[in-house]
Amino acid sequence: MRLAARPVGQPRPGDWEHTEEPVGEPGEGEILVRVKYLSIDPAMRGWMNDAKSYIEPVGIGEVMRAGAVGEVIASRHPRFAVGDHVSGAFGVQEYCLSDGRGVAPADPELAPLPVHLGTLGMSGMTAYFGLLDIGRPEAGQTVVVSGAAGAVGSVVGQIARIKGCRVIGIAGGERKCRALVDDLGFDAAIDYQSQDVRKALREHAPDGVDVYFDNVGGDILDAVLTRLARGARIVVCGAISQYNNTEPVKGPSNYLSLLVNRATMTGMVVFDYADRYAEAVRQLAEWRAEGRLVSVEDVVDGGVSAFPDTLLRLFRGENHGKLVLAVAGG
Amino acid sequence: MRLAARPVGQPRPGDWEHTEEPVGEPGEGEILVRVKYLSIDPAMRGWMNDAKSYIEPVGIGEVMRAGAVGEVIASRHPRFAVGDHVSGAFGVQEYCLSDGRGVAPADPELAPLPVHLGTLGMSGMTAYFGLLDIGRPEAGQTVVVSGAAGAVGSVVGQIARIKGCRVIGIAGGERKCRALVDDLGFDAAIDYQSQDVRKALREHAPDGVDVYFDNVGGDILDAVLTRLARGARIVVCGAISQYNNTEPVKGPSNYLSLLVNRATMTGMVVFDYADRYAEAVRQLAEWRAEGRLVSVEDVVDGGVSAFPDTLLRLFRGENHGKLVLAVAGG
Repeated sequence: MRLAARPVGQPRPGDWEHTEEPVGEPGEGEILVRVKYLSIDPAMRGWMNDAKSYIEPVGIGEVMRAGAVGEVIASRHPRFAVGDHVSGAFGVQEYCLSDGRGVAPADPELAPLPVHLGTLGMSGMTAYFGLLDIGRPEAGQTVVVSGAAGAVGSVVGQIARIKGCRVIGIAGGERKCRALVDDLGFDAAIDYQSQDVRKALREHAPDGVDVYFDNVGGDILDAVLTRLARGARIVVCGAISQYNNTEPVKGPSNYLSLLVNRATMTGMVVFDYADRYAEAVRQLAEWRAEGRLVSVEDVVDGGVSAFPDTLLRLFRGENHGKLVLAVAGG
Repeated sequence: MRLAARPVGQPRPGDWEHTEEPVGEPGEGEILVRVKYLSIDPAMRGWMNDAKSYIEPVGIGEVMRAGAVGEVIASRHPRFAVGDHVSGAFGVQEYCLSDGRGVAPADPELAPLPVHLGTLGMSGMTAYFGLLDIGRPEAGQTVVVSGAAGAVGSVVGQIARIKGCRVIGIAGGERKCRALVDDLGFDAAIDYQSQDVRKALREHAPDGVDVYFDNVGGDILDAVLTRLARGARIVVCGAISQYNNTEPVKGPSNYLSLLVNRATMTGMVVFDYADRYAEAVRQLAEWRAEGRLVSVEDVVDGGVSAFPDTLLRLFRGENHGKLVLAVAGG
């Protein structure tokens, strides 16, 4: 699936072109990977824009960038053998030739393959480092996370619970909100579709919000800003509400609450923590094995051609947990 | 000068009432201060609003809050003698009875009295702690300050120079900008009234902005956000462009630059540093004595009745340096 056009606003299927090409043979030091699952992420929207960001945009005509897991089916690389399962930025395609850079083992005995894209993949890394390094929650503090039913948010909330915090999730729809409390152990959930977020925060966070992990931006960020506790930390991880904007991004009108509350708002990009991924995977896998961290994956069948529709599900808030596209069967 | 009404938008003279009342006698543990100079600050606008903030609003009918310096003319307090000069929150009035809390000596030999409201007063404290503790500039880095010709900004820029940084000031008008470079040693100045701030920042900060000390908010904050260096620190000290708004505050549309650049935006309130004021005064007075830190005061005559007009000068950007209202002659 190659990028064919730079979308304005919401992407459309015609922004990509599905091409069929012969699969190459690995050269010396390369592997050929059969892709099994693709990670579908809000950040993909940003990669389609021709703008300075934390990563190069995908070029027109290039294979659309995507994290993935797959199986090595041919190898001339000393670190990888045929039959190994691996994760890496293999792109939206069925086969990928790779020189092994950025490729990590994905042990199917440790967890099902889609979990290596979610809790044990970039989503889990983002949650782990964003919450613990930037948010620095302390036991007894109140942590709020938006996009709470999503791949990152669901892990953020559960880590905060493990750390002894009171956790409030903000998500869209009653079903998602119920699952946060019933299945993931959140203390409370706010349905932004049917509830007044400010009012609900007043009720659920009477002493203010110590850490806010923001995946959505927009009005929800503004609502949380009105409820900050003294010295609060806001982790700016994303702003899915703003990614398809054709108008300028809505800045947080209530940002002067940072001044009143001596609070801080900090951006994070998970790639900066690459040298500590192993630490995070070990810890997350341990919590998962102990049953303290539940992985939620939303696996969509349909293969590479279903990619555009699947990506759009994210922006409609239809996914529940980590959105994964199955390419060639598990 | 008592607060008579809560202004909507820009304050008007009728928002205060000038009353004449007999001067009281100090009781046991009290002093009577004859006020000589009043500190005129943007923050005063916020104190007039009936809203949760970092300090209680001034009540209707109460003397308008103001920092001031004056002379002790009667004392029943062990720490203060008649003839001592002191600074404190004496309010917009000619005489003030005080129990001595929050009152500090203001040695006229160390510096002229208005300087005790500016460089050696709350403005200097704000610059010192905001820049050094929150901004954490390193030698060779680029520091940008808005409201650069004002009481806080002029000190921020000079401290950054002392610390070996490249300093760019943003101010309104050619005269102010020229003074920043010629008199205060800034490396460059941008006149937001006549220049395109983004373009000028591209020119003067080609490697990006490491520290931004924001006194103004609004469009200038948005412009600086487009030029952040990796790991930049934004100090949110004020937002004078937004204080008289009757519409909601303009949030920074470009706040996602925090994410792209792993940057941080932190609010500060000088009162949190009260236990370190002495350290700052000592250091600032030393730099001043060495001629490395120039104090700029804009002293307006006219007494208490000139207070409303004088405050409005701030919002019209008419002051140059620390705005001070002389009450009873120096």
